[in-house]
Amino acid sequence: MVVLGPNRYGKAETRVVQVTRHGDAHRVKDLNVSTTLSGDMTEVHLSGDNSAVLPTDTQKNTVYAFAKKHGIGAIEDFALLLARHFVGTQPAVRHARVAIEEYTWERNGSNGHSFVRAGRETRTCVAHVDGSGERVVSGLRGLVVMNTTNSEFRGFASDEYTTLTETRDRILATEVAASWRHAYFPTYWDKSHETARWALLAAFADTYSLSLQQTLYAMGSRVLAECPEICEVRLSLPNKHHFEVDLSHFGLDNDGEIFFAADRPYGLIEGTVLREDAPDAGPAWE
Amino acid sequence: MVVLGPNRYGKAETRVVQVTRHGDAHRVKDLNVSTTLSGDMTEVHLSGDNSAVLPTDTQKNTVYAFAKKHGIGAIEDFALLLARHFVGTQPAVRHARVAIEEYTWERNGSNGHSFVRAGRETRTCVAHVDGSGERVVSGLRGLVVMNTTNSEFRGFASDEYTTLTETRDRILATEVAASWRHAYFPTYWDKSHETARWALLAAFADTYSLSLQQTLYAMGSRVLAECPEICEVRLSLPNKHHFEVDLSHFGLDNDGEIFFAADRPYGLIEGTVLREDAPDAGPAWE
Amino acid sequence: MVVLGPNRYGKAETRVVQVTRHGDAHRVKDLNVSTTLSGDMTEVHLSGDNSAVLPTDTQKNTVYAFAKKHGIGAIEDFALLLARHFVGTQPAVRHARVAIEEYTWERNGSNGHSFVRAGRETRTCVAHVDGSGERVVSGLRGLVVMNTTNSEFRGFASDEYTTLTETRDRILATEVAASWRHAYFPTYWDKSHETARWALLAAFADTYSLSLQQTLYAMGSRVLAECPEICEVRLSLPNKHHFEVDLSHFGLDNDGEIFFAADRPYGLIEGTVLREDAPDAGPAWE
Amino acid sequence: MVVLGPNRYGKAETRVVQVTRHGDAHRVKDLNVSTTLSGDMTEVHLSGDNSAVLPTDTQKNTVYAFAKKHGIGAIEDFALLLARHFVGTQPAVRHARVAIEEYTWERNGSNGHSFVRAGRETRTCVAHVDGSGERVVSGLRGLVVMNTTNSEFRGFASDEYTTLTETRDRILATEVAASWRHAYFPTYWDKSHETARWALLAAFADTYSLSLQQTLYAMGSRVLAECPEICEVRLSLPNKHHFEVDLSHFGLDNDGEIFFAADRPYGLIEGTVLREDAPDAGPAWE
Repeated sequence: MVVLGPNRYGKAETRVVQVTRHGDAHRVKDLNVSTTLSGDMTEVHLSGDNSAVLPTDTQKNTVYAFAKKHGIGAIEDFALLLARHFVGTQPAVRHARVAIEEYTWERNGSNGHSFVRAGRETRTCVAHVDGSGERVVSGLRGLVVMNTTNSEFRGFASDEYTTLTETRDRILATEVAASWRHAYFPTYWDKSHETARWALLAAFADTYSLSLQQTLYAMGSRVLAECPEICEVRLSLPNKHHFEVDLSHFGLDNDGEIFFAADRPYGLIEGTVLREDAPDAGPAWE
Repeated sequence: MVVLGPNRYGKAETRVVQVTRHGDAHRVKDLNVSTTLSGDMTEVHLSGDNSAVLPTDTQKNTVYAFAKKHGIGAIEDFALLLARHFVGTQPAVRHARVAIEEYTWERNGSNGHSFVRAGRETRTCVAHVDGSGERVVSGLRGLVVMNTTNSEFRGFASDEYTTLTETRDRILATEVAASWRHAYFPTYWDKSHETARWALLAAFADTYSLSLQQTLYAMGSRVLAECPEICEVRLSLPNKHHFEVDLSHFGLDNDGEIFFAADRPYGLIEGTVLREDAPDAGPAWE
Repeated sequence: MVVLGPNRYGKAETRVVQVTRHGDAHRVKDLNVSTTLSGDMTEVHLSGDNSAVLPTDTQKNTVYAFAKKHGIGAIEDFALLLARHFVGTQPAVRHARVAIEEYTWERNGSNGHSFVRAGRETRTCVAHVDGSGERVVSGLRGLVVMNTTNSEFRGFASDEYTTLTETRDRILATEVAASWRHAYFPTYWDKSHETARWALLAAFADTYSLSLQQTLYAMGSRVLAECPEICEVRLSLPNKHHFEVDLSHFGLDNDGEIFFAADRPYGLIEGTVLREDAPDAGPAWE
Repeated sequence: MVVLGPNRYGKAETRVVQVTRHGDAHRVKDLNVSTTLSGDMTEVHLSGDNSAVLPTDTQKNTVYAFAKKHGIGAIEDFALLLARHFVGTQPAVRHARVAIEEYTWERNGSNGHSFVRAGRETRTCVAHVDGSGERVVSGLRGLVVMNTTNSEFRGFASDEYTTLTETRDRILATEVAASWRHAYFPTYWDKSHETARWALLAAFADTYSLSLQQTLYAMGSRVLAECPEICEVRLSLPNKHHFEVDLSHFGLDNDGEIFFAADRPYGLIEGTVLREDAPDAGPAWE
């Protein structure tokens, strides 16, 4: 007997840009919104009866209409607004997930209407709304960082396939993908995001690293120390290897100066740091 | 009180190519292998003590050494071999996850040593080995398919933001990403993969579609019908919209002939089809 | 004194899909069209006077309208049709360049309306039309090929920075990007493309290679030998290095069996093979 | 009679990172270097005789050795150093082209050894050295800018395929790819680059735009006005369309507030601004 298991559908990557004009000083919000709904959707799978299916085209329209009606503030607020709307107005929709990426722009000069894309990283959030409540995970990705010293890698396990030598000084570089779950919603999402981001950067810079795992734990812990509203941090840290080039063939020393930045393979360290009393995550990470 | 939650680490994207020479008739296996270990790793996170950490560099070496010692047959077998090795030889490693992508090559001419990359799609697998047993998920991604008729979308739910009109004839196009879990391991992984792939293609072609969800369910069901060893299928199907271009401004009809292939946004339909008596998935999908 | 130099403008990447219905047997043409115009465009640059500027939006509309009015046959014919139209109807447009990429689909089963993207490679063409005549360059890219033997690299120049050792047997792999210019237009573009593609593949397979440059020349020569209508071939061949992995640390031989497929850096070999009496290229390669 | 036409070869994308340690204050240079040589290379193409071919592996080694021996200052200086070396030491090499991309890092905190990738854009240069002299083109790409007002598009040419309506207020957004040729080499490449970059941004912000072509010309002119050492500027400006969303179906106005950021197709405006007395470009742009 074959049955339908977990399923969901939605509109992915609706690109919405809002320009707000306060006299000559404009403001730009630039988002990529993905809405995903689930609920009483057995019939559409089994017989193609679409009566429970709000079209993904309608979901896209709703993003644009809500941007106009409600404006776009913090992406977490906009995600919650959309998720509540779908659950609250569509009888068949039991659960809404809204994921948003935000691209940031900085002012180009002082005329108030010219901007340059900051490009450092992407701010992210995922909001879940269903009968069990509301959950928000915030985060960022594409934050590339490097320490040129204060990183060792020694005392590791080894077997017959181990050829790596120990090092007391290496480059440690990674591209941070971080997500954090909230125990309660902060008054100001932007301020919370800024603090968490700062904590990640500060912990990366300050940690004398014996392993990337140790750095990961330090980064997650620092976010929790700085942000009482956050109860869990998940980090995915590729170890972007920088190999010291052997220049001895050319009669040259290379004492931690010239490196080859490799693409693949790469180490990948993933981990979670959380408060012991963190509330149940529910579907927050889905 | 802050604690360490779920964590894992490994070497991602080790690119290994094996050439087997049977006289003049060579054979090529071209893989991208990612190994991920977890277990008693608290100390490395908390204090940077690496004594439980088998370096990711060693994991990479193991992939190459095993390719030589054992050869590469079906990727599922190679993934299991590696996963068992790590769990079986490293005391601190409780769980190994090995994910492999395979790129296929076809013969270029008849000389036996010239090949052309097939490129249609990527074959995938993920093997998990831990104290609870062994699990394998196989799959594929990048399989792009299109039906130019026999697809409707009507009778959907609507609200104040709905502007989409019903259609009785549209292009249905998607890029199939499919994974399937095994209730038991087949004798021949390659044969099983071939049958599952054929079932996906046949169901896509044969289904008169009232919704992409219906097509998804038909595709998953067909795999289960054809492959007794498979107990669960997960599909992620982006709806690659092809919009009929309005040519009326130019005095031209457009009766399902000229389409604009859009990039973003796109619908995204995800779902699971499984046997009612499927065994517990455990960590298979992680 | 500052002046305007060479300039051009157009609409890039108009994605058009045409479905032709011959009873139950449908046919799909899937193109990416980029149109580029130039001519008397000084004023728009200097003063913003757009009176000579046919909007890029109009160019896009023309692509769709022409797909309907004239159908899409060989991409070279469609490119010429569009280029002639812009030069012939817009007084300020002196030169039109139309570049087309074609993605091929194969039948999925036998129902006549289901297709699977072939994905092996992209077929390309660029047509130029101006007062000096019409020129067409055809080509392909993304054709990935590999020889597992019959490739040496020895007897090369060396200096104090040379550490590479000679080899009498290596993997030779590349991703072919090829373009070819026509001395005259063939009766059947599709047939000409098929022959040129076959010549590239055959020459790659048949050449015992002492260097990738030699293989390049053999490939270009073969196209010219097989296709009298073609007068010049340009090839760009990245040397996709496959390095033999040193397994001696593990007590294992590796006699041309296990390779690491590297990403970067890569060799890049570019060259032209042409008939001595090839007509002047004019703007064909721009 | 078939002959060899223009050809060149080299090592593409050698990734070199140099760390300089001034006490606790480290400095990072992060480059992607591509070297390309040409000269007396007929034999290698015709017969596979490699005696004139300096291996691309040696070119890679040279990049790393030179980074150590000479350090990396401005990328233009490093490119010239490498190009002169190859032409000056290899008898068969008549021409060297060295292209470099630079990725910039900013300090992360104040410890002197932690960095965060700036990511705004990539700085570029191409140096050519041969018997006719030395030429340097500098530039940047990936600089994404947007004006939210002061952009019109009216008075354009139209034909039967024109449906675009005129606008007096639109978003103007582009991703700047700019290259500039030097009439003479500046004393400080970094200062010259900074000034040219500033000129591009300032001209984009300051220009009340009647067309993207006009903005392009203003940007190029401004660079020439600010940088006497620069004699020619080439710009490639995709028109990243932001379409006002029609919200009237939902009873909502949209007066330049809510936009859909489209991917494809896009306008593409390319042009050159140069001094009337610019010296001959020779191979500078190849």
